[in-house]
Amino acid sequence: GVLGSGDFARSLAVRLVCSGFKVLVGSRNPKRKASLFPAAAEVTFQAEAVKKADVIFVAIFREHYSTLCDLADVLVGKILVDVSNNTEINHHKESNAEYLASLFPACTVVKGFNVVSAWTLQSGARDGNKQVLICSNNQEAKRTVAEIAQAMGFSPVDMGCMSSAREIENIPLRLLPAWKIPIFLALGLFICFFTYNLVRQVIHPYIREQKNKLYKIPIEVVNTTLPCVSYVMLSLVYLPGVLAACSQLYYGTKYRRFPDWLDQWLQHRKQIGLLSFFCAALHAVYSLCLPMRRSHRYLLIETAVKQAVEKRMTIWVEEEVWRMEIYISVGIIALGLLSLLAITSLPSIANSLNWREFSFIQ
Amino acid sequence: GVLGSGDFARSLAVRLVCSGFKVLVGSRNPKRKASLFPAAAEVTFQAEAVKKADVIFVAIFREHYSTLCDLADVLVGKILVDVSNNTEINHHKESNAEYLASLFPACTVVKGFNVVSAWTLQSGARDGNKQVLICSNNQEAKRTVAEIAQAMGFSPVDMGCMSSAREIENIPLRLLPAWKIPIFLALGLFICFFTYNLVRQVIHPYIREQKNKLYKIPIEVVNTTLPCVSYVMLSLVYLPGVLAACSQLYYGTKYRRFPDWLDQWLQHRKQIGLLSFFCAALHAVYSLCLPMRRSHRYLLIETAVKQAVEKRMTIWVEEEVWRMEIYISVGIIALGLLSLLAITSLPSIANSLNWREFSFIQ
Amino acid sequence: GVLGSGDFARSLAVRLVCSGFKVLVGSRNPKRKASLFPAAAEVTFQAEAVKKADVIFVAIFREHYSTLCDLADVLVGKILVDVSNNTEINHHKESNAEYLASLFPACTVVKGFNVVSAWTLQSGARDGNKQVLICSNNQEAKRTVAEIAQAMGFSPVDMGCMSSAREIENIPLRLLPAWKIPIFLALGLFICFFTYNLVRQVIHPYIREQKNKLYKIPIEVVNTTLPCVSYVMLSLVYLPGVLAACSQLYYGTKYRRFPDWLDQWLQHRKQIGLLSFFCAALHAVYSLCLPMRRSHRYLLIETAVKQAVEKRMTIWVEEEVWRMEIYISVGIIALGLLSLLAITSLPSIANSLNWREFSFIQ
Repeated sequence: GVLGSGDFARSLAVRLVCSGFKVLVGSRNPKRKASLFPAAAEVTFQAEAVKKADVIFVAIFREHYSTLCDLADVLVGKILVDVSNNTEINHHKESNAEYLASLFPACTVVKGFNVVSAWTLQSGARDGNKQVLICSNNQEAKRTVAEIAQAMGFSPVDMGCMSSAREIENIPLRLLPAWKIPIFLALGLFICFFTYNLVRQVIHPYIREQKNKLYKIPIEVVNTTLPCVSYVMLSLVYLPGVLAACSQLYYGTKYRRFPDWLDQWLQHRKQIGLLSFFCAALHAVYSLCLPMRRSHRYLLIETAVKQAVEKRMTIWVEEEVWRMEIYISVGIIALGLLSLLAITSLPSIANSLNWREFSFIQ
Repeated sequence: GVLGSGDFARSLAVRLVCSGFKVLVGSRNPKRKASLFPAAAEVTFQAEAVKKADVIFVAIFREHYSTLCDLADVLVGKILVDVSNNTEINHHKESNAEYLASLFPACTVVKGFNVVSAWTLQSGARDGNKQVLICSNNQEAKRTVAEIAQAMGFSPVDMGCMSSAREIENIPLRLLPAWKIPIFLALGLFICFFTYNLVRQVIHPYIREQKNKLYKIPIEVVNTTLPCVSYVMLSLVYLPGVLAACSQLYYGTKYRRFPDWLDQWLQHRKQIGLLSFFCAALHAVYSLCLPMRRSHRYLLIETAVKQAVEKRMTIWVEEEVWRMEIYISVGIIALGLLSLLAITSLPSIANSLNWREFSFIQ
Repeated sequence: GVLGSGDFARSLAVRLVCSGFKVLVGSRNPKRKASLFPAAAEVTFQAEAVKKADVIFVAIFREHYSTLCDLADVLVGKILVDVSNNTEINHHKESNAEYLASLFPACTVVKGFNVVSAWTLQSGARDGNKQVLICSNNQEAKRTVAEIAQAMGFSPVDMGCMSSAREIENIPLRLLPAWKIPIFLALGLFICFFTYNLVRQVIHPYIREQKNKLYKIPIEVVNTTLPCVSYVMLSLVYLPGVLAACSQLYYGTKYRRFPDWLDQWLQHRKQIGLLSFFCAALHAVYSLCLPMRRSHRYLLIETAVKQAVEKRMTIWVEEEVWRMEIYISVGIIALGLLSLLAITSLPSIANSLNWREFSFIQ
């Protein structure tokens, strides 16, 4: 059974019908709404739909839950699946599912399907996340809903008892929250270092020697900026650990909570580290592209022609040769090690390492 | 208990013995078959083996299930594990496990271990997939079999009730079905563009100017072909979304099923996108290799010598310098963005993103 | 309830208090120990703590389990969570959890939380592995502990019945055991090939022609060493499969265990393969860096100047051009194929492939 006639209710009915279930839709105005639903779904009055169905998807807004109170008698003993979402994180004191359970104590409430989008329901689970997080205080009801999710092509994940409902309801509202600060940090650092390098490599030679080096902006200036950003970000990954140790030494205990700003910082370390790796990898690609450029080719030929005209046969500078060889060599090794760190931050790799192994690699 | 004496039955007995279980093998001709099994496994008549064992692995073909009907009395209350596979996807109307359950209603049937190969059983779960998918209508039986799988070194995965058996039986028959069309598509596009570029870069100069440019085939022609393939594939990822929206507008409803060809296309988008990324990455590597080639070196020296002999000191062409700088710069940024898309298609990353985050990145 | 006052007990109390649980700490000397615990945790005598609590975390060493025997009466019916670790793999005959269960047969023992570090408990589960492996013979108790773990921000993983406790206790003692042999192998091979290449490319020209080629050490010598290591490692991945087949042919059976050394070798194949890929990838990056070096630039200009002074206009050698084009082309294709192999060894990708698909890609 499906209660509601919004976008999600209709998409849910479509998917249930496609997965071979018999679907009853309960509406207060079945005649007008019938055309909105797929032909295979039977649209009747709410009371009738509830009476015939064992599992009822409550696809209406939290504000309208109380309108179901008329159905309290027929709902007794049924499994109610709360698929609702909020518009803000932690919007209400208690989660929607807990609120529904408090309204209908004679029903078994299961939270689920809210992490799935209406589009995924319409078109079937294809790419992206196929998980459906489910929680309930009743094991049997949870299993029944999990089997429905399985039959619909999703991967049910047991999230424990009803107290997880709040967490599950917050999930679809997230938009990469852990990345916001690190990305703005990286952008800020990039702008600072880019301006400095622009002045040094382009504007200064122009003013002093009237040399037009504007062509350096897209690659060379960016390429000297990226490793600076990468270095600062990498140091920001390991600094909070040192500060945390200092704070523990200062207070003389390991069991005191860290101040909020340090806690936040510790939480963003992984993202800062990954952005540091991303900048380092881009720097490597930019550097490798340097000899491909026309400007590199022209400068090389010009030097050769100058040497040939002046008949100077040797231009070998041992010190510069060594500096470049060592610079490149150390750069490759550093990138190789950073790659290892980045790979261990993949969820499936991290889950196969114990904490000793993880610390060892770090 | 193990019923059967085929390759799978023997491998299963080997692994069970190695994992510390007491194994009874039921055979119609125990004397002749005993030598085929490891010494620690006791080979007796079928009825005797079934009588003593609690969990019985039925390692015989579906066609011979009915021969077990003589044992119906001793089988009452036992757990039967159906490990069979089919030779074709959806070969029979009902899954082997459901057929076995219908033959022996007094037994508890569990589907499992069919996704494991005989070789993995012989040599132990090492690399590759260690999951054993299990389904049954009986929770207790499912748990018992899951614990056996765990003790054998596999990771049991609960796939819900018996109706999943069909899906589980189809899994070992798959051979990258989602990749077939995208790979042929990529190959087709590659051949077309390669022919075009071959004509333009090698055959045409040869016919018109009698210049031998055959050396361009292994790298330069391939390198101009790859980004063409990549672009066309990338556009094929986003085109079906537009077509689906058009189809919804045309029919005036979001809840109508898409035509089959569009549905198929929507299902292959991820694979097409990954092949597009693969071509783009290969193009990047090929491009980076260009300055390493002898031909590049010779052309450079020849130009330099020509300039020197003619005493022309400057060959700088501002427009060509800029074109190349911008071309490389945009290429790197595009590759960086495509890499992000490719990383989010890793299953463990995709499962940690909600649909808003996934759509945002796309 | 928490029994114990060590680092782990205190960290556990901190995390439980932070997660909103009411925590009772049982100590033999509550007055002296109270200051060690967070203020919100109530520190009382052991008997009192046990009496009031339903779930009791036993955070004391295995050696002191017997000191709890005085509490046997009040412990009846309680859930005991064994969080202990050993100092050596398979230190005792029976796992700590099984030993605890044998001491208190009237309690329900659950193994769990031992894979989490005290630091993770103090600071909350952030990066790395968030899984808490749980096993018990009692489903209800396991579920209760799983829900506590969930509320503390961890991901509980059901590891089946108590016999898995031994495996769970061994996990935190591991330190990348499967990588030790492959890494020493790679290092050994690297040193051998490096010495050979050093003699050939640097020492030999120095002795014979007094040419100083020391600048080649950091990049060129390393770069010719890496593919040698990579090739030998790759052959070591596929050799044991051939040996295993030979051993099966020799003994005339597929169901005989392989000799131990072969078994070990078969188990390390994945790691050897990944190191082979790592060396190949480093070789690619080193090779791409070759034209960036000063020495490359100087040699190029010197050749150009020499040609110009001698007025030799052409230096094109068709054979060398072709050799390099084909060498680079084959190298890129090989790296692309190896990348595919490396990607399928990611746990989340491997788990989405069946054994036929995995063998096909291999």
